[in-house]
Amino acid sequence: MNRHQFVSTVAAIGFGAFAAISAAHAQEDTLPSWNDGANKQAIIDFVTAVTTEGGADFVAVGDRIATFDNDGTLWSEQPMYVQLAFALDEIKAMAPDHPEWKTTEPYKSVLDGNMSGLVASGKEGLEKIIAVTHTGMTTDQFEQTVSAWIATAKNPKTDKLDTEMIFEPMVEVIDYLKANDFDVYIVSGGGIEFMRPWTEKTYGIPPENVVGSSVKLKYEVTDNGPVLMREAEIDFIDDGPGKPVGIQKFIGKRPIAAFGNSDGDYQMLQWTTTAPGKRLGMIVHHDDAAREFAYDRDSHFGKLDKAMDDASKEGWHLISMKDDWKQIFPSN
Amino acid sequence: MNRHQFVSTVAAIGFGAFAAISAAHAQEDTLPSWNDGANKQAIIDFVTAVTTEGGADFVAVGDRIATFDNDGTLWSEQPMYVQLAFALDEIKAMAPDHPEWKTTEPYKSVLDGNMSGLVASGKEGLEKIIAVTHTGMTTDQFEQTVSAWIATAKNPKTDKLDTEMIFEPMVEVIDYLKANDFDVYIVSGGGIEFMRPWTEKTYGIPPENVVGSSVKLKYEVTDNGPVLMREAEIDFIDDGPGKPVGIQKFIGKRPIAAFGNSDGDYQMLQWTTTAPGKRLGMIVHHDDAAREFAYDRDSHFGKLDKAMDDASKEGWHLISMKDDWKQIFPSN
Repeated sequence: MNRHQFVSTVAAIGFGAFAAISAAHAQEDTLPSWNDGANKQAIIDFVTAVTTEGGADFVAVGDRIATFDNDGTLWSEQPMYVQLAFALDEIKAMAPDHPEWKTTEPYKSVLDGNMSGLVASGKEGLEKIIAVTHTGMTTDQFEQTVSAWIATAKNPKTDKLDTEMIFEPMVEVIDYLKANDFDVYIVSGGGIEFMRPWTEKTYGIPPENVVGSSVKLKYEVTDNGPVLMREAEIDFIDDGPGKPVGIQKFIGKRPIAAFGNSDGDYQMLQWTTTAPGKRLGMIVHHDDAAREFAYDRDSHFGKLDKAMDDASKEGWHLISMKDDWKQIFPSN
Repeated sequence: MNRHQFVSTVAAIGFGAFAAISAAHAQEDTLPSWNDGANKQAIIDFVTAVTTEGGADFVAVGDRIATFDNDGTLWSEQPMYVQLAFALDEIKAMAPDHPEWKTTEPYKSVLDGNMSGLVASGKEGLEKIIAVTHTGMTTDQFEQTVSAWIATAKNPKTDKLDTEMIFEPMVEVIDYLKANDFDVYIVSGGGIEFMRPWTEKTYGIPPENVVGSSVKLKYEVTDNGPVLMREAEIDFIDDGPGKPVGIQKFIGKRPIAAFGNSDGDYQMLQWTTTAPGKRLGMIVHHDDAAREFAYDRDSHFGKLDKAMDDASKEGWHLISMKDDWKQIFPSN
């Protein structure tokens, strides 16, 4: 046995035993926060099918792409998107430097906590709020602001940290897919640089696997070295038909599994599940007012209407938070 | 010893022995196509420094990002960019369906092989050629066209396949970085979807690790299912100051090593090497007319002027193809 053979043998024994015992262990503990039922089984059957070598549905490792929406799919989006809460908090934090905001809309409504006033300011008002809170700074500065804010930000209804209001059963799906050599991406309408500072710690998804909406960036060389400035101009909206576009731009491969919760995920689900081969499309349905929130067709945030109507026809699985999930949030 | 301890022990023995012997083996064979000298040593010293746990320059695995330009850095870009050769070949292939091109510029010049006529048609002429050859089809169709073309495309000067005119020493650097747990990206001014069909087979860099210029995509649902149409509108130019922007958009992390060959890589090198910590910036200098091509300040393709002037001041290493590389192209 030469050195190369020795290494191969040691590695093979080590890896082989490890893999066999891991697989047995995984089988027992797969998706522990899920109740047994058709949806849990659909996930396991799908993963088994695409990872069984020699099987009709086998998919090679590099092509095992799974995409997850974020708001309402991986964490709570009620009573408002977390990123909107961030923007409103930033307005309050910046207000001392802007005394004129006390009497100018849409800032006045934000400072007064007057949500209907904010809604009355419309799309234009919201764009102003996003512009002053999300642009005009460097990418580094924005990352620091987001990181500091998310460390303490709480859901106003539950008083829990936003990062504790993530859906444990979905994190288990992410981990299960990763353990089966999937590349897992977030594909969200939310801001890409609002998510990147915390997705790795929170979900185990690193910055380069986050696809989202963006503003234009500009490279500038300052006295303190080069920076990337966040400009007050939309670069890309990663929502609805933008999601397949974002997937192609950033990943360049068509997913084989997609997870969403609203009509904004319709095209991502369609793009994923209409390709030939075994595919998985799932929709988180918020039907658990007792443990989280119950909403769908009439919600301002995470409206689920057409995708629910077409789910059955398209073969998309509706996940009932109430029935399918033993536990919603992590125990820590 | 319980089952978990058993698994850990077996895995640790396997991995440990494997890692130790691999490292010893790697030391002997590191960068075999490079002549011993300051540049080869700089690469090895850099990788050793950032991967030595407990060392002052240690960089965690997820932050070991390296970016490589493509044209002129990983493969030959003379006598013209390969992607331009693709566009001109496509014009010829499409010409039978466009009899009017025989008498209309810039197509006439392309069909006549009249390069100075093409140059005379200017930016507008080139844009027309790119539009008809790169847009108006689905992403799938474009991928198929590129894949079919690249399989047989040859450099007009050497009559070698373009994919054989890759720089073996640079592929060795990619492999060496990957073996040291770097995430390696291509960051090119070329079209992202022109590169993705072949970069994995050619360099070992998968589609999701390719950053490049792009046209806008549009999601459409046809009778045959959804498609992404390539629209005749520029989405992003990944060149010059666009390279740090592309890096931030796609990766969301600042590289610790960057490799280029022209002034179009200036800002990528600057963005990489001005960050705190141990950084590596390298420029491939085409100074080997006998084995490849010799050009720099006056070249239409891959002009290297300001980056060469500033290399010493900025600490960027100039790689001499003539002196640093034992071998330029792969052997078979």
